[in-house]
Amino acid sequence: MPEQLPKGFRAAGIYSGVKENTSRLDLSLLVSDAPCVAAGVYTQNLVFAAPVKLCRERTPSETVRAVVINSGNANACTGDLGDRDAKAMAARVAEVCGFADTDVLVLSTGVIGELMPMEKIIPGIEKVATFLGRDEDSLVNAARGMMTTDTRPKISSRIVTIDGQTISICGVAKGAAMIGPNLATMLAVVMTDARISLQDAQEGLKDAADESFNCISVEGHTSTNDSVLFLANGAAGGPELKGDALAKFQATLVEVCEDLAQSIPADGEGASHLITVEVHGCRTRDEAIQIAKTVADSPLVKTAIAGNDPNWGRIVSAAGYAGVQFDASKVCLHLNGSLLYERGQPVPFDGDAVSREMEADRNTGVVLLFDEGEASARFWTSDLTAEYVRLNADYRT
Amino acid sequence: MPEQLPKGFRAAGIYSGVKENTSRLDLSLLVSDAPCVAAGVYTQNLVFAAPVKLCRERTPSETVRAVVINSGNANACTGDLGDRDAKAMAARVAEVCGFADTDVLVLSTGVIGELMPMEKIIPGIEKVATFLGRDEDSLVNAARGMMTTDTRPKISSRIVTIDGQTISICGVAKGAAMIGPNLATMLAVVMTDARISLQDAQEGLKDAADESFNCISVEGHTSTNDSVLFLANGAAGGPELKGDALAKFQATLVEVCEDLAQSIPADGEGASHLITVEVHGCRTRDEAIQIAKTVADSPLVKTAIAGNDPNWGRIVSAAGYAGVQFDASKVCLHLNGSLLYERGQPVPFDGDAVSREMEADRNTGVVLLFDEGEASARFWTSDLTAEYVRLNADYRT
Repeated sequence: MPEQLPKGFRAAGIYSGVKENTSRLDLSLLVSDAPCVAAGVYTQNLVFAAPVKLCRERTPSETVRAVVINSGNANACTGDLGDRDAKAMAARVAEVCGFADTDVLVLSTGVIGELMPMEKIIPGIEKVATFLGRDEDSLVNAARGMMTTDTRPKISSRIVTIDGQTISICGVAKGAAMIGPNLATMLAVVMTDARISLQDAQEGLKDAADESFNCISVEGHTSTNDSVLFLANGAAGGPELKGDALAKFQATLVEVCEDLAQSIPADGEGASHLITVEVHGCRTRDEAIQIAKTVADSPLVKTAIAGNDPNWGRIVSAAGYAGVQFDASKVCLHLNGSLLYERGQPVPFDGDAVSREMEADRNTGVVLLFDEGEASARFWTSDLTAEYVRLNADYRT
Repeated sequence: MPEQLPKGFRAAGIYSGVKENTSRLDLSLLVSDAPCVAAGVYTQNLVFAAPVKLCRERTPSETVRAVVINSGNANACTGDLGDRDAKAMAARVAEVCGFADTDVLVLSTGVIGELMPMEKIIPGIEKVATFLGRDEDSLVNAARGMMTTDTRPKISSRIVTIDGQTISICGVAKGAAMIGPNLATMLAVVMTDARISLQDAQEGLKDAADESFNCISVEGHTSTNDSVLFLANGAAGGPELKGDALAKFQATLVEVCEDLAQSIPADGEGASHLITVEVHGCRTRDEAIQIAKTVADSPLVKTAIAGNDPNWGRIVSAAGYAGVQFDASKVCLHLNGSLLYERGQPVPFDGDAVSREMEADRNTGVVLLFDEGEASARFWTSDLTAEYVRLNADYRT
């Protein structure tokens, strides 16, 4: 099934000249025919980029009409001039499309510490607006225009029927597993034609991000530009979603966000495995996340999996230093379905067979069981290969 | 100047057969002619090895006589049988040397999840005791017997005159930068002939470890076996050190611990740089350490330095996600003495020249300045090379 924009949205992506490589797109525009309820979640890094500052000021909102996104330059660490440029980008979109300045949001990703080449971006904005379309090509081009070291565009869409209304959710994202020239910036824009209140949009996005974008870890390095935007234009018609209808919508939103989030560690020339770390039996979800994240961030765990090595010792001991109290004599570990460690003791297993299975499957599943409570968490990451390091070390600022 | 054991200590290291490679030593013994005041600091990992459990039970003490150390097997994740074996090792040392069981401490490092080969260790203990000596060779052999993936033995000693007494401090350590088959276990034993109270020994070791062993980061992965022991036998004579004399002793102890700690990230086939991260101008030392550790643990920072890339963006943004509040518009960054980032803005610099300097120097100095207070911290780590990943991925459990 082709990926599809929700009703009332149009998209485009072009090459504007910010990137040196003329075969890659670098400027995207997403536009809604009607004002959108808009929410955002942003990087927690104290060093954040000019477009993040702009979006923070302009969301939440009930009147957003467009998001302009460029790749190749992050407009980060660029001071007051960077703020001026981000505003000018929004202003030019507003002029060209006939919106109010403050109803346009801006996302950027790329090199940091360099001023935005406005002499390329401004004509680019005029041009990209002429390509806006509702077809799949337009959507894919918009997803391509966000890419930096991504090897493929990232799009996820769902159509659901809620109380007789056909509602569509579609998200585009960028972010690659392994190479971090832009500090592995993660950007996503999720659009829907559902009608949602501002408060539900805000809470819904935050909850969905907590179960998806906040559960991936590539380098443990939060970028200056990380942003997730949510736009709902109500074009599907019907009343504002509430109660069960809202819950059904939210479940679908989480699916789309999980799809997009997983695609980030799954992408990247250097990665050989997508690792899913599941943690069960913790006292609280925060504790489960803390353990899952610590295991997922461990370079020793990630290199072992790159080498198809069922090294339970690295996994169990990473859990042990997560800063969460647990009874170590109750811990169990499964790797790709094989029990390797049971109630605090290693279990005899066929290491060669498990290793061969790891090698044959791009997905690696790590399941840690504790005996402290009922809370669970899931975290995604990629393995750590020599190729990853080579690409990162060779990339030059 | 040759490294030298403090008065009243003897050392030995032999090959006992725990390691497969017969050209490498794997069993060491350190013995004091008189009872020692002994203190220890141990891994914070909830999953800790049998010898750590034994040492925790037996320190602090005023009667320790010996430390037996084996490499090749960590006696970790070995359950009750592991506890039995660690105790049996201490008991055999006690029998052979004529000490009380509980006055012998045990350290182990090596593969985890396998029972200790006691049929090799017990005869080994009988043998190593016959080699005890005070010469430099005996000391070096003891340091060699602790090694796993270390490329060289690690010894640091100092002789100081305090209130007319000649006092010696000597430490041996193991731990390598890059390869983590044993989860990069760090072991150290610091011996002195000074006379120190039990309380001063405990506090002094903790403070010294906080400024040294707790300021190195190789993988961010705290091992199941990490231990630092301190033994003071008073053989230098004179009164218990107090006041200024104690302070002078403490300063020397810190020097020895820093020497040993630095030698860990400096060692390793895979590492190409020893990175020193200095942080100044924080509100508290804890905040300064938190920032320094976050920068030192960042794979993006470590790969950039491996590639001789003066990538200030990765460093500044790693500081930004350390979880410490600061005014980002006041941050300055020096790399190997060059100012790259000043008061929140990148500074024009000759990237090729800085890169050439990085390439020519095995030491890389990162200095971050904040404008929040007077506290500082220093952290050591190694860079992240493709060779590191290859070694880690190829190592098989």
